Amino acid sequence: MTSHPEHSAVTVLGLGPMGRALAGAFLAAGRPTTVWNRTPGKEQELVERGAVSTRSPEEAVAASGLTVVCVVNYDAVDAIVRRGAVTDALSGRTVMNLTADTPDRARDTATWAAEHGIDYLDGAIMTPTTTIGTPGAVFLHSGPEDLYRQHQPTLDALGGTHTHLGEDIGRAAAYDIALLDIFWTAMAGYAHALAVAKAEGVTARELTPFAKGIGEILPPLFEQAAEEVDSGRYSGEDNPITSAASSMAHIVHTSEAHGIDASVMRAAEGLARRVIGRGHGTDGFLRITEIMNP
Amino acid sequence: MTSHPEHSAVTVLGLGPMGRALAGAFLAAGRPTTVWNRTPGKEQELVERGAVSTRSPEEAVAASGLTVVCVVNYDAVDAIVRRGAVTDALSGRTVMNLTADTPDRARDTATWAAEHGIDYLDGAIMTPTTTIGTPGAVFLHSGPEDLYRQHQPTLDALGGTHTHLGEDIGRAAAYDIALLDIFWTAMAGYAHALAVAKAEGVTARELTPFAKGIGEILPPLFEQAAEEVDSGRYSGEDNPITSAASSMAHIVHTSEAHGIDASVMRAAEGLARRVIGRGHGTDGFLRITEIMNP
Repeated sequence: MTSHPEHSAVTVLGLGPMGRALAGAFLAAGRPTTVWNRTPGKEQELVERGAVSTRSPEEAVAASGLTVVCVVNYDAVDAIVRRGAVTDALSGRTVMNLTADTPDRARDTATWAAEHGIDYLDGAIMTPTTTIGTPGAVFLHSGPEDLYRQHQPTLDALGGTHTHLGEDIGRAAAYDIALLDIFWTAMAGYAHALAVAKAEGVTARELTPFAKGIGEILPPLFEQAAEEVDSGRYSGEDNPITSAASSMAHIVHTSEAHGIDASVMRAAEGLARRVIGRGHGTDGFLRITEIMNP
Repeated sequence: MTSHPEHSAVTVLGLGPMGRALAGAFLAAGRPTTVWNRTPGKEQELVERGAVSTRSPEEAVAASGLTVVCVVNYDAVDAIVRRGAVTDALSGRTVMNLTADTPDRARDTATWAAEHGIDYLDGAIMTPTTTIGTPGAVFLHSGPEDLYRQHQPTLDALGGTHTHLGEDIGRAAAYDIALLDIFWTAMAGYAHALAVAKAEGVTARELTPFAKGIGEILPPLFEQAAEEVDSGRYSGEDNPITSAASSMAHIVHTSEAHGIDASVMRAAEGLARRVIGRGHGTDGFLRITEIMNP
Protein backbone atom coordinates (compact mmCIF):
# COMPACT_ATOMS: atom_id res chain seq x y z
CA MET A 1 0.00 0.00 0.00
CA THR A 2 1.42 3.36 -1.03
CA SER A 3 1.27 6.16 1.46
CA HIS A 4 -1.12 8.83 0.25
CA PRO A 5 -1.06 12.12 2.15
CA GLU A 6 -4.73 12.76 1.56
CA HIS A 7 -5.57 9.42 3.21
CA SER A 8 -3.39 9.74 6.25
CA ALA A 9 -4.34 13.35 6.90
CA VAL A 10 -7.56 14.01 8.76
CA THR A 11 -9.76 17.05 9.27
CA VAL A 12 -11.92 17.51 12.35
CA LEU A 13 -14.94 19.84 12.13
CA GLY A 14 -16.34 20.81 15.51
CA LEU A 15 -14.15 21.46 18.55
CA GLY A 16 -16.48 20.90 21.45
CA PRO A 17 -15.13 18.62 24.20
CA MET A 18 -15.58 15.50 22.01
CA GLY A 19 -14.20 17.10 18.82
CA ARG A 20 -11.12 18.30 20.74
CA ALA A 21 -10.63 14.80 22.18
CA LEU A 22 -10.83 13.27 18.67
CA ALA A 23 -8.39 15.81 17.17
CA GLY A 24 -6.06 15.31 20.15
CA ALA A 25 -6.02 11.55 19.58
CA PHE A 26 -5.21 12.01 15.87
CA LEU A 27 -2.35 14.35 16.77
CA ALA A 28 -1.08 11.90 19.41
CA ALA A 29 -1.02 9.20 16.71
CA GLY A 30 1.05 11.45 14.44
CA ARG A 31 -1.67 12.13 11.88
CA PRO A 32 -1.52 15.47 10.04
CA THR A 33 -4.61 17.08 11.56
CA THR A 34 -6.57 20.10 10.38
CA VAL A 35 -9.21 21.58 12.65
CA TRP A 36 -12.04 24.08 12.35
CA ASN A 37 -14.75 25.28 14.70
CA ARG A 38 -17.65 27.62 14.02
CA THR A 39 -16.63 29.96 16.82
CA PRO A 40 -12.86 30.50 17.16
CA GLY A 41 -10.86 30.03 20.36
CA LYS A 42 -11.25 26.29 20.88
CA GLU A 43 -8.33 25.33 18.61
CA GLN A 44 -5.47 26.92 20.53
CA GLU A 45 -4.18 23.91 22.49
CA LEU A 46 -4.51 21.68 19.42
CA VAL A 47 -2.53 24.14 17.28
CA GLU A 48 0.20 24.19 19.94
CA ARG A 49 0.31 20.40 19.56
CA GLY A 50 0.73 20.64 15.78
CA ALA A 51 -2.77 20.95 14.34
CA VAL A 52 -3.41 23.27 11.42
CA SER A 53 -6.31 25.64 12.01
CA THR A 54 -8.20 27.11 9.06
CA ARG A 55 -10.48 30.11 8.82
CA SER A 56 -13.17 28.39 6.78
CA PRO A 57 -14.62 24.85 6.76
CA GLU A 58 -13.99 24.57 3.01
CA GLU A 59 -10.26 25.13 3.58
CA ALA A 60 -10.33 22.58 6.38
CA VAL A 61 -11.98 19.79 4.38
CA ALA A 62 -9.72 20.46 1.37
CA ALA A 63 -6.68 19.61 3.51
CA SER A 64 -7.56 15.92 4.04
CA GLY A 65 -9.09 12.91 2.35
CA LEU A 66 -11.16 12.21 5.50
CA THR A 67 -13.23 14.73 7.41
CA VAL A 68 -14.56 13.73 10.81
CA VAL A 69 -17.57 15.78 11.94
CA CYS A 70 -18.57 15.90 15.58
CA VAL A 71 -20.97 18.69 16.50
CA VAL A 72 -24.11 19.01 18.62
CA ASN A 73 -26.63 17.49 16.16
CA TYR A 74 -27.33 17.10 12.43
CA ASP A 75 -28.84 20.58 12.16
CA ALA A 76 -25.38 21.83 13.08
CA VAL A 77 -23.79 19.37 10.61
CA ASP A 78 -26.04 20.63 7.82
CA ALA A 79 -25.29 24.27 8.65
CA ILE A 80 -21.59 23.53 8.09
CA VAL A 81 -21.45 21.08 5.18
CA ARG A 82 -24.57 21.81 3.13
CA ARG A 83 -23.16 25.05 1.77
CA GLY A 84 -21.88 25.31 -1.79
CA ALA A 85 -18.18 25.87 -1.08
CA VAL A 86 -17.94 23.13 1.57
CA THR A 87 -20.03 20.62 -0.39
CA ASP A 88 -17.85 21.27 -3.47
CA ALA A 89 -14.66 20.82 -1.45
CA LEU A 90 -15.96 17.52 0.00
CA SER A 91 -16.71 16.04 -3.43
CA GLY A 92 -14.52 12.94 -3.97
CA ARG A 93 -13.58 12.85 -0.28
CA THR A 94 -14.98 10.99 2.73
CA VAL A 95 -17.10 12.36 5.56
CA MET A 96 -17.25 10.35 8.77
CA ASN A 97 -20.06 11.81 10.84
CA LEU A 98 -19.64 11.00 14.54
CA THR A 99 -22.36 13.47 15.57
CA ALA A 100 -25.23 11.96 17.59
CA ASP A 101 -28.73 12.19 16.13
CA THR A 102 -31.44 9.89 14.79
CA PRO A 103 -31.26 7.09 12.18
CA ASP A 104 -33.49 9.04 9.77
CA ARG A 105 -31.13 12.02 9.87
CA ALA A 106 -28.20 9.70 9.13
CA ARG A 107 -30.06 8.27 6.12
CA ASP A 108 -30.97 11.75 4.90
CA THR A 109 -27.34 12.88 5.18
CA ALA A 110 -26.19 9.80 3.24
CA THR A 111 -28.63 10.66 0.45
CA TRP A 112 -27.31 14.23 0.31
CA ALA A 113 -23.71 12.94 0.28
CA ALA A 114 -24.40 10.50 -2.58
CA GLU A 115 -26.00 13.29 -4.61
CA HIS A 116 -22.79 15.30 -4.26
CA GLY A 117 -20.21 12.59 -4.88
CA ILE A 118 -19.19 12.46 -1.23
CA ASP A 119 -18.33 9.12 0.40
CA TYR A 120 -20.20 8.88 3.69
CA LEU A 121 -19.82 6.89 6.90
CA ASP A 122 -21.94 7.38 9.98
CA GLY A 123 -20.88 6.56 13.52
CA ALA A 124 -21.65 6.93 17.19
CA ILE A 125 -19.34 7.40 20.16
CA MET A 126 -20.66 5.45 23.15
CA THR A 127 -18.18 6.56 25.82
CA PRO A 128 -17.14 9.87 27.43
CA THR A 129 -14.49 12.22 26.03
CA THR A 130 -11.98 10.98 28.61
CA THR A 131 -11.95 7.52 26.98
CA ILE A 132 -10.94 8.81 23.52
CA GLY A 133 -7.46 7.57 22.59
CA THR A 134 -7.63 4.89 25.32
CA PRO A 135 -8.70 1.21 25.24
CA GLY A 136 -11.95 2.23 26.99
CA ALA A 137 -13.44 4.04 23.99
CA VAL A 138 -16.36 2.40 22.18
CA PHE A 139 -17.30 3.42 18.64
CA LEU A 140 -20.10 2.10 16.43
CA HIS A 141 -19.98 2.53 12.66
CA SER A 142 -22.26 1.99 9.70
CA GLY A 143 -22.11 2.48 5.97
CA PRO A 144 -20.28 0.88 3.01
CA GLU A 145 -17.95 -1.78 4.37
CA ASP A 146 -15.11 -1.18 1.90
CA LEU A 147 -15.13 2.52 2.75
CA TYR A 148 -15.05 1.66 6.45
CA ARG A 149 -12.12 -0.74 5.93
CA GLN A 150 -10.28 1.96 3.99
CA HIS A 151 -10.42 4.35 6.94
CA GLN A 152 -9.92 1.76 9.67
CA PRO A 153 -6.21 2.65 10.16
CA THR A 154 -7.26 6.23 10.91
CA LEU A 155 -9.91 5.03 13.37
CA ASP A 156 -7.28 2.99 15.20
CA ALA A 157 -5.73 6.30 16.22
CA LEU A 158 -8.85 6.95 18.31
CA GLY A 159 -8.19 3.87 20.44
CA GLY A 160 -10.82 1.55 21.92
CA THR A 161 -13.20 -0.78 20.15
CA HIS A 162 -14.67 -0.09 16.73
CA THR A 163 -17.60 -2.17 15.47
CA HIS A 164 -18.92 -1.97 11.92
CA LEU A 165 -22.63 -2.76 12.35
CA GLY A 166 -23.58 -3.04 8.69
CA GLU A 167 -24.14 -1.24 5.43
CA ASP A 168 -27.44 0.37 6.51
CA ILE A 169 -26.21 3.89 7.21
CA GLY A 170 -28.78 4.37 10.01
CA ARG A 171 -27.60 1.39 12.03
CA ALA A 172 -25.01 3.15 14.21
CA ALA A 173 -27.57 5.82 15.13
CA ALA A 174 -30.19 3.13 15.82
CA TYR A 175 -27.87 1.35 18.26
CA ASP A 176 -26.91 4.70 19.75
CA ILE A 177 -30.56 5.68 20.30
CA ALA A 178 -31.41 2.29 21.84
CA LEU A 179 -28.39 2.31 24.15
CA LEU A 180 -28.95 5.92 25.23
CA ASP A 181 -32.56 4.95 25.87
CA ILE A 182 -31.43 2.26 28.32
CA PHE A 183 -28.90 4.60 29.90
CA TRP A 184 -31.03 7.70 30.40
CA THR A 185 -34.10 5.78 31.53
CA ALA A 186 -31.99 3.95 34.11
CA MET A 187 -30.48 7.23 35.30
CA ALA A 188 -33.98 8.78 35.53
CA GLY A 189 -35.06 5.80 37.67
CA TYR A 190 -32.01 6.15 39.87
CA ALA A 191 -32.57 9.90 40.30
CA HIS A 192 -36.20 9.28 41.25
CA ALA A 193 -35.22 6.51 43.66
CA LEU A 194 -32.76 8.87 45.36
CA ALA A 195 -35.46 11.54 45.68
CA VAL A 196 -37.92 9.08 47.26
CA ALA A 197 -35.21 7.63 49.51
CA LYS A 198 -34.28 11.14 50.69
CA ALA A 199 -37.91 11.86 51.55
CA GLU A 200 -37.85 8.65 53.61
CA GLY A 201 -34.71 9.76 55.43
CA VAL A 202 -32.32 7.54 53.46
CA THR A 203 -29.27 9.31 51.98
CA ALA A 204 -27.89 8.58 48.52
CA ARG A 205 -24.73 7.26 50.15
CA GLU A 206 -26.75 4.79 52.24
CA LEU A 207 -28.74 3.54 49.27
CA THR A 208 -25.84 3.31 46.82
CA PRO A 209 -24.30 -0.04 47.86
CA PHE A 210 -27.70 -1.68 47.26
CA ALA A 211 -28.33 0.38 44.11
CA LYS A 212 -25.03 -0.90 42.72
CA GLY A 213 -26.27 -4.42 43.47
CA ILE A 214 -29.32 -3.72 41.29
CA GLY A 215 -27.02 -2.42 38.55
CA GLU A 216 -24.97 -5.60 38.73
CA ILE A 217 -27.94 -7.95 38.20
CA LEU A 218 -29.08 -6.07 35.08
CA PRO A 219 -26.62 -7.44 32.46
CA PRO A 220 -27.58 -11.13 32.93
CA LEU A 221 -31.27 -10.17 33.07
CA PHE A 222 -30.83 -8.15 29.84
CA GLU A 223 -29.48 -11.29 28.18
CA GLN A 224 -32.37 -13.45 29.41
CA ALA A 225 -34.92 -10.82 28.40
CA ALA A 226 -33.43 -10.54 24.91
CA GLU A 227 -34.13 -14.22 24.35
CA GLU A 228 -37.73 -13.71 25.45
CA VAL A 229 -38.21 -10.73 23.14
CA ASP A 230 -36.66 -12.42 20.09
CA SER A 231 -38.71 -15.59 20.69
CA GLY A 232 -41.94 -13.79 21.65
CA ARG A 233 -42.29 -16.00 24.74
CA TYR A 234 -42.35 -13.95 27.95
CA SER A 235 -42.06 -16.24 30.94
CA GLY A 236 -43.71 -14.73 34.00
CA GLU A 237 -43.37 -17.92 36.02
CA ASP A 238 -41.14 -16.44 38.72
CA ASN A 239 -42.21 -12.84 38.33
CA PRO A 240 -45.48 -12.15 36.49
CA ILE A 241 -46.23 -8.67 35.19
CA THR A 242 -49.08 -8.39 37.73
CA SER A 243 -46.43 -8.51 40.43
CA ALA A 244 -44.30 -5.90 38.64
CA ALA A 245 -47.35 -3.63 38.30
CA SER A 246 -48.07 -4.04 42.01
CA SER A 247 -44.49 -2.97 42.86
CA MET A 248 -44.83 -0.02 40.50
CA ALA A 249 -48.07 1.06 42.19
CA HIS A 250 -46.27 0.98 45.56
CA ILE A 251 -43.51 3.17 44.12
CA VAL A 252 -45.98 5.68 42.64
CA HIS A 253 -47.95 5.78 45.89
CA THR A 254 -44.89 6.35 48.07
CA SER A 255 -43.49 8.96 45.68
CA GLU A 256 -46.69 10.95 45.40
CA ALA A 257 -47.37 10.70 49.14
CA HIS A 258 -44.17 12.76 49.47
CA GLY A 259 -45.26 15.13 46.68
CA ILE A 260 -42.54 13.75 44.39
CA ASP A 261 -43.27 13.62 40.65
CA ALA A 262 -43.76 9.97 39.64
CA SER A 263 -44.42 10.58 35.95
CA VAL A 264 -41.70 8.20 34.71
CA MET A 265 -42.92 5.30 36.86
CA ARG A 266 -46.57 6.15 36.12
CA ALA A 267 -45.78 5.79 32.40
CA ALA A 268 -44.02 2.45 32.96
CA GLU A 269 -46.88 1.19 35.14
CA GLY A 270 -49.33 2.28 32.43
CA LEU A 271 -47.59 0.00 29.93
CA ALA A 272 -47.72 -2.92 32.38
CA ARG A 273 -51.43 -2.30 33.03
CA ARG A 274 -52.11 -2.36 29.28
CA VAL A 275 -50.46 -5.79 29.01
CA ILE A 276 -52.55 -7.03 31.95
CA GLY A 277 -55.70 -5.47 30.50
CA ARG A 278 -55.15 -7.43 27.29
CA GLY A 279 -55.17 -10.68 29.26
CA HIS A 280 -51.42 -11.34 29.56
CA GLY A 281 -51.06 -10.84 33.32
CA THR A 282 -49.19 -14.11 33.83
CA ASP A 283 -46.53 -13.12 31.25
CA GLY A 284 -43.26 -11.44 32.19
CA PHE A 285 -42.79 -7.65 32.17
CA LEU A 286 -40.85 -7.63 28.87
CA ARG A 287 -44.15 -8.31 27.12
CA ILE A 288 -44.56 -4.51 27.14
CA THR A 289 -42.24 -4.47 24.10
CA GLU A 290 -45.16 -5.90 22.11
CA ILE A 291 -47.84 -3.42 23.13
CA MET A 292 -45.95 -0.17 22.70
CA ASN A 293 -47.07 -0.09 19.09
CA PRO A 294 -50.60 1.33 18.72
CA MET B 1 -28.05 -20.02 75.74
CA THR B 2 -30.85 -22.46 76.54
CA SER B 3 -32.77 -23.96 73.69
CA HIS B 4 -36.34 -22.71 73.71
CA PRO B 5 -38.78 -24.54 71.42
CA GLU B 6 -40.89 -21.47 70.82
CA HIS B 7 -37.84 -19.61 69.61
CA SER B 8 -36.51 -22.23 67.31
CA ALA B 9 -39.89 -23.09 65.82
CA VAL B 10 -41.18 -20.88 63.04
CA THR B 11 -44.54 -20.37 61.35
CA VAL B 12 -44.87 -19.24 57.75
CA LEU B 13 -48.11 -17.59 56.64
CA GLY B 14 -48.54 -17.43 52.89
CA LEU B 15 -47.38 -20.19 50.55
CA GLY B 16 -46.94 -18.43 47.26
CA PRO B 17 -43.62 -19.12 45.50
CA MET B 18 -41.69 -16.94 48.00
CA GLY B 19 -43.50 -18.27 51.08
CA ARG B 20 -42.82 -21.85 49.98
CA ALA B 21 -39.14 -21.00 49.42
CA LEU B 22 -38.89 -19.51 52.92
CA ALA B 23 -40.62 -22.49 54.57
CA GLY B 24 -38.45 -24.88 52.55
CA ALA B 25 -35.29 -23.13 53.79
CA PHE B 26 -36.46 -23.35 57.43
CA LEU B 27 -37.16 -27.08 56.96
CA ALA B 28 -33.77 -27.61 55.32
CA ALA B 29 -32.17 -25.97 58.36
CA GLY B 30 -34.02 -28.37 60.68
CA ARG B 31 -36.39 -25.80 62.16
CA PRO B 32 -39.80 -27.06 63.32
CA THR B 33 -41.93 -25.35 60.69
CA THR B 34 -45.67 -24.73 60.69
CA VAL B 35 -47.33 -23.49 57.51
CA TRP B 36 -50.68 -22.05 56.50
CA ASN B 37 -52.10 -20.64 53.29
CA ARG B 38 -55.46 -19.01 52.63
CA THR B 39 -56.28 -21.46 49.89
CA PRO B 40 -55.22 -25.07 50.55
CA GLY B 41 -53.11 -27.22 48.21
CA LYS B 42 -49.83 -25.29 48.32
CA GLU B 43 -48.54 -27.04 51.48
CA GLN B 44 -48.26 -30.61 50.20
CA GLU B 45 -44.57 -30.75 49.29
CA LEU B 46 -43.64 -28.89 52.49
CA VAL B 47 -45.68 -31.34 54.62
CA GLU B 48 -43.90 -34.24 52.91
CA ARG B 49 -40.64 -32.60 53.99
CA GLY B 50 -41.81 -32.38 57.63
CA ALA B 51 -43.82 -29.17 57.90
CA VAL B 52 -46.96 -29.10 60.03
CA SER B 53 -49.96 -27.71 58.21
CA THR B 54 -52.83 -26.14 60.15
CA ARG B 55 -56.39 -25.44 59.17
CA SER B 56 -56.50 -21.93 60.62
CA PRO B 57 -53.97 -19.09 60.85
CA GLU B 58 -54.58 -18.84 64.63
CA GLU B 59 -53.47 -22.45 65.07
CA ALA B 60 -50.44 -21.79 62.88
CA VAL B 61 -49.21 -18.72 64.78
CA ALA B 62 -49.81 -20.46 68.15
CA ALA B 63 -47.29 -23.14 67.19
CA SER B 64 -44.22 -20.85 67.11
CA GLY B 65 -42.66 -17.85 68.80
CA LEU B 66 -41.92 -16.30 65.39
CA THR B 67 -44.36 -15.96 62.54
CA VAL B 68 -43.00 -14.97 59.13
CA VAL B 69 -45.61 -13.45 56.82
CA CYS B 70 -45.05 -13.29 53.07
CA VAL B 71 -48.15 -12.59 51.01
CA VAL B 72 -49.01 -10.38 48.03
CA ASN B 73 -49.35 -7.04 49.89
CA TYR B 74 -50.36 -5.55 53.25
CA ASP B 75 -54.07 -5.72 52.42
CA ALA B 76 -53.58 -9.48 52.34
CA VAL B 77 -51.53 -9.34 55.56
CA ASP B 78 -54.31 -7.41 57.30
CA ALA B 79 -56.97 -9.83 56.08
CA ILE B 80 -55.07 -12.64 57.81
CA VAL B 81 -53.70 -11.15 61.03
CA ARG B 82 -56.13 -8.35 61.91
CA ARG B 83 -58.83 -10.76 63.00
CA GLY B 84 -59.60 -11.34 66.69
CA ALA B 85 -58.48 -14.95 66.99
CA VAL B 86 -55.22 -14.45 65.08
CA THR B 87 -54.39 -11.14 66.77
CA ASP B 88 -55.01 -12.77 70.17
CA ALA B 89 -52.82 -15.75 69.31
CA LEU B 90 -50.01 -13.42 68.16
CA SER B 91 -49.98 -11.46 71.43
CA GLY B 92 -46.60 -11.91 73.12
CA ARG B 93 -45.09 -13.40 69.98
CA THR B 94 -43.11 -11.91 67.08
CA VAL B 95 -44.30 -11.17 63.57
CA MET B 96 -41.66 -10.74 60.88
CA ASN B 97 -43.41 -9.30 57.86
CA LEU B 98 -41.48 -9.99 54.64
CA THR B 99 -44.37 -8.87 52.44
CA ALA B 100 -43.55 -6.08 49.97
CA ASP B 101 -45.50 -2.84 50.29
CA THR B 102 -44.92 0.80 51.19
CA PRO B 103 -43.16 2.36 54.20
CA ASP B 104 -46.42 3.91 55.45
CA ARG B 105 -48.12 0.50 55.50
CA ALA B 106 -45.16 -0.91 57.46
CA ARG B 107 -45.50 1.91 60.01
CA ASP B 108 -49.24 1.40 60.26
CA THR B 109 -48.77 -2.33 60.85
CA ALA B 110 -46.20 -1.63 63.56
CA THR B 111 -48.70 0.66 65.30
CA TRP B 112 -51.35 -2.06 65.18
CA ALA B 113 -48.86 -4.64 66.48
CA ALA B 114 -47.82 -2.43 69.41
CA GLU B 115 -51.47 -1.89 70.34
CA HIS B 116 -51.92 -5.66 70.59
CA GLY B 117 -48.72 -6.59 72.41
CA ILE B 118 -47.15 -8.12 69.31
CA ASP B 119 -43.43 -7.71 68.65
CA TYR B 120 -42.99 -6.57 65.07
CA LEU B 121 -40.16 -6.62 62.53
CA ASP B 122 -40.50 -5.54 58.93
CA GLY B 123 -38.35 -6.76 56.09
CA ALA B 124 -37.89 -6.94 52.35
CA ILE B 125 -36.55 -9.72 50.15
CA MET B 126 -34.49 -8.25 47.32
CA THR B 127 -33.72 -11.41 45.32
CA PRO B 128 -35.77 -14.09 43.50
CA THR B 129 -37.23 -17.20 45.15
CA THR B 130 -34.43 -19.33 43.71
CA THR B 131 -31.86 -17.51 45.87
CA ILE B 132 -33.60 -18.32 49.18
CA GLY B 133 -31.47 -20.67 51.28
CA THR B 134 -28.39 -19.83 49.18
CA PRO B 135 -25.60 -17.25 49.62
CA GLY B 136 -27.22 -15.17 46.86
CA ALA B 137 -30.25 -14.12 48.90
CA VAL B 138 -30.46 -10.49 50.03
CA PHE B 139 -32.75 -9.47 52.91
CA LEU B 140 -33.28 -6.02 54.40
CA HIS B 141 -34.72 -5.61 57.89
CA SER B 142 -35.97 -2.82 60.09
CA GLY B 143 -37.45 -2.48 63.56
CA PRO B 144 -36.19 -2.84 67.15
CA GLU B 145 -32.56 -3.94 67.04
CA ASP B 146 -32.74 -6.25 70.10
CA LEU B 147 -35.76 -8.03 68.61
CA TYR B 148 -33.89 -8.40 65.31
CA ARG B 149 -30.80 -9.81 67.10
CA GLN B 150 -33.05 -12.27 68.97
CA HIS B 151 -34.33 -13.76 65.73
CA GLN B 152 -31.08 -13.56 63.77
CA PRO B 153 -30.30 -17.30 64.24
CA THR B 154 -33.62 -18.12 62.56
CA LEU B 155 -32.87 -15.71 59.72
CA ASP B 156 -29.54 -17.44 59.13
CA ALA B 157 -31.55 -20.47 58.00
CA LEU B 158 -32.71 -18.38 55.01
CA GLY B 159 -29.13 -17.99 53.78
CA GLY B 160 -27.68 -14.94 52.07
CA THR B 161 -27.04 -11.49 53.46
CA HIS B 162 -29.21 -9.87 56.12
CA THR B 163 -28.86 -6.15 56.83
CA HIS B 164 -30.58 -4.42 59.72
CA LEU B 165 -31.18 -0.89 58.39
CA GLY B 166 -32.36 0.75 61.59
CA GLU B 167 -35.10 1.05 64.16
CA ASP B 168 -37.47 3.03 61.88
CA ILE B 169 -39.87 0.25 60.93
CA GLY B 170 -40.47 1.78 57.46
CA ARG B 171 -36.82 1.69 56.47
CA ALA B 172 -36.73 -1.76 54.85
CA ALA B 173 -39.78 -0.87 52.74
CA ALA B 174 -38.21 2.50 51.84
CA TYR B 175 -35.06 0.79 50.56
CA ASP B 176 -37.20 -1.81 48.80
CA ILE B 177 -39.28 0.86 47.04
CA ALA B 178 -36.18 2.82 45.99
CA LEU B 179 -34.38 -0.28 44.68
CA LEU B 180 -37.44 -1.58 42.85
CA ASP B 181 -37.78 1.90 41.37
CA ILE B 182 -34.28 1.63 39.90
CA PHE B 183 -34.90 -1.92 38.73
CA TRP B 184 -38.29 -1.50 37.05
CA THR B 185 -37.43 1.84 35.46
CA ALA B 186 -34.27 0.32 33.99
CA MET B 187 -36.24 -2.68 32.71
CA ALA B 188 -38.84 -0.34 31.18
CA GLY B 189 -36.03 1.53 29.43
CA TYR B 190 -34.53 -1.72 28.18
CA ALA B 191 -37.91 -2.96 26.91
CA HIS B 192 -38.46 0.33 25.07
CA ALA B 193 -34.96 0.25 23.61
CA LEU B 194 -35.61 -3.28 22.30
CA ALA B 195 -38.88 -2.14 20.71
CA VAL B 196 -37.19 0.81 18.98
CA ALA B 197 -34.24 -1.35 17.92
CA LYS B 198 -36.61 -3.94 16.44
CA ALA B 199 -38.39 -1.23 14.43
CA GLU B 200 -34.94 -0.25 13.12
CA GLY B 201 -34.20 -3.85 12.11
CA VAL B 202 -31.92 -4.59 15.08
CA THR B 203 -32.73 -7.76 17.04
CA ALA B 204 -32.57 -8.01 20.82
CA ARG B 205 -29.74 -10.51 20.46
CA GLU B 206 -27.74 -8.03 18.36
CA LEU B 207 -28.26 -5.18 20.81
CA THR B 208 -27.68 -7.18 24.00
CA PRO B 209 -23.85 -7.24 24.09
CA PHE B 210 -23.88 -3.43 23.96
CA ALA B 211 -26.84 -3.19 26.36
CA LYS B 212 -24.87 -5.27 28.85
CA GLY B 213 -22.05 -2.76 28.43
CA ILE B 214 -24.45 0.02 29.47
CA GLY B 215 -25.52 -2.07 32.47
CA GLU B 216 -21.91 -2.49 33.49
CA ILE B 217 -21.13 1.25 33.55
CA LEU B 218 -24.12 2.01 35.80
CA PRO B 219 -22.74 0.94 39.23
CA PRO B 220 -19.73 3.31 39.20
CA LEU B 221 -21.93 6.10 37.82
CA PHE B 222 -24.47 5.42 40.59
CA GLU B 223 -21.70 5.94 43.11
CA GLN B 224 -20.53 9.19 41.52
CA ALA B 225 -24.12 10.47 41.24
CA ALA B 226 -24.81 9.69 44.90
CA GLU B 227 -22.00 12.03 45.90
CA GLU B 228 -23.50 14.75 43.72
CA VAL B 229 -26.96 14.31 45.20
CA ASP B 230 -25.79 14.24 48.82
CA SER B 231 -23.61 17.33 48.24
CA GLY B 232 -26.13 19.19 46.07
CA ARG B 233 -23.41 19.91 43.47
CA TYR B 234 -24.30 18.45 40.08
CA SER B 235 -21.32 18.66 37.77
CA GLY B 236 -22.37 18.86 34.14
CA GLU B 237 -18.86 19.59 32.93
CA ASP B 238 -18.51 16.49 30.78
CA ASN B 239 -22.20 15.92 30.15
CA PRO B 240 -24.57 18.83 30.81
CA ILE B 241 -28.30 18.19 31.17
CA THR B 242 -28.88 20.10 27.90
CA SER B 243 -26.97 17.33 26.15
CA ALA B 244 -28.99 14.64 27.96
CA ALA B 245 -32.24 16.38 26.98
CA SER B 246 -31.06 16.51 23.37
CA SER B 247 -30.41 12.73 23.41
CA MET B 248 -33.81 12.16 24.99
CA ALA B 249 -35.49 14.21 22.26
CA HIS B 250 -33.75 12.04 19.63
CA ILE B 251 -35.05 8.92 21.37
CA VAL B 252 -38.62 10.25 21.59
CA HIS B 253 -38.51 11.34 17.93
CA THR B 254 -37.21 7.98 16.68
CA SER B 255 -39.66 6.05 18.84
CA GLU B 256 -42.71 8.03 17.80
CA ALA B 257 -41.66 8.05 14.13
CA HIS B 258 -42.15 4.26 14.38
CA GLY B 259 -45.45 4.69 16.25
CA ILE B 260 -43.89 3.35 19.43
CA ASP B 261 -45.14 4.74 22.76
CA ALA B 262 -42.40 6.95 24.24
CA SER B 263 -44.26 7.95 27.41
CA VAL B 264 -41.50 6.86 29.80
CA MET B 265 -38.80 8.82 27.97
CA ARG B 266 -41.15 11.77 27.45
CA ALA B 267 -41.62 11.94 31.22
CA ALA B 268 -37.87 11.75 31.83
CA GLU B 269 -37.22 14.42 29.19
CA GLY B 270 -39.88 16.60 30.82
CA LEU B 271 -37.95 16.54 34.09
CA ALA B 272 -34.72 17.49 32.29
CA ARG B 273 -36.49 20.35 30.48
CA ARG B 274 -37.78 21.67 33.82
CA VAL B 275 -34.23 21.78 35.18
CA ILE B 276 -33.07 23.62 32.04
CA GLY B 277 -36.07 25.97 32.21
CA ARG B 278 -35.08 26.94 35.73
CA GLY B 279 -31.66 28.03 34.48
CA HIS B 280 -29.57 24.97 35.43
CA GLY B 281 -28.78 23.74 31.91
CA THR B 282 -25.06 23.44 32.58
CA ASP B 283 -25.64 21.16 35.58
CA GLY B 284 -25.62 17.38 35.36
CA PHE B 285 -28.76 15.28 34.81
CA LEU B 286 -29.01 14.19 38.45
CA ARG B 287 -30.17 17.70 39.28
CA ILE B 288 -33.65 16.40 38.42
CA THR B 289 -33.71 14.89 41.94
CA GLU B 290 -34.13 18.45 43.23
CA ILE B 291 -37.03 19.53 41.03
CA MET B 292 -39.30 16.49 41.38
CA ASN B 293 -40.85 18.12 44.43
CA PRO B 294 -43.54 20.65 43.47
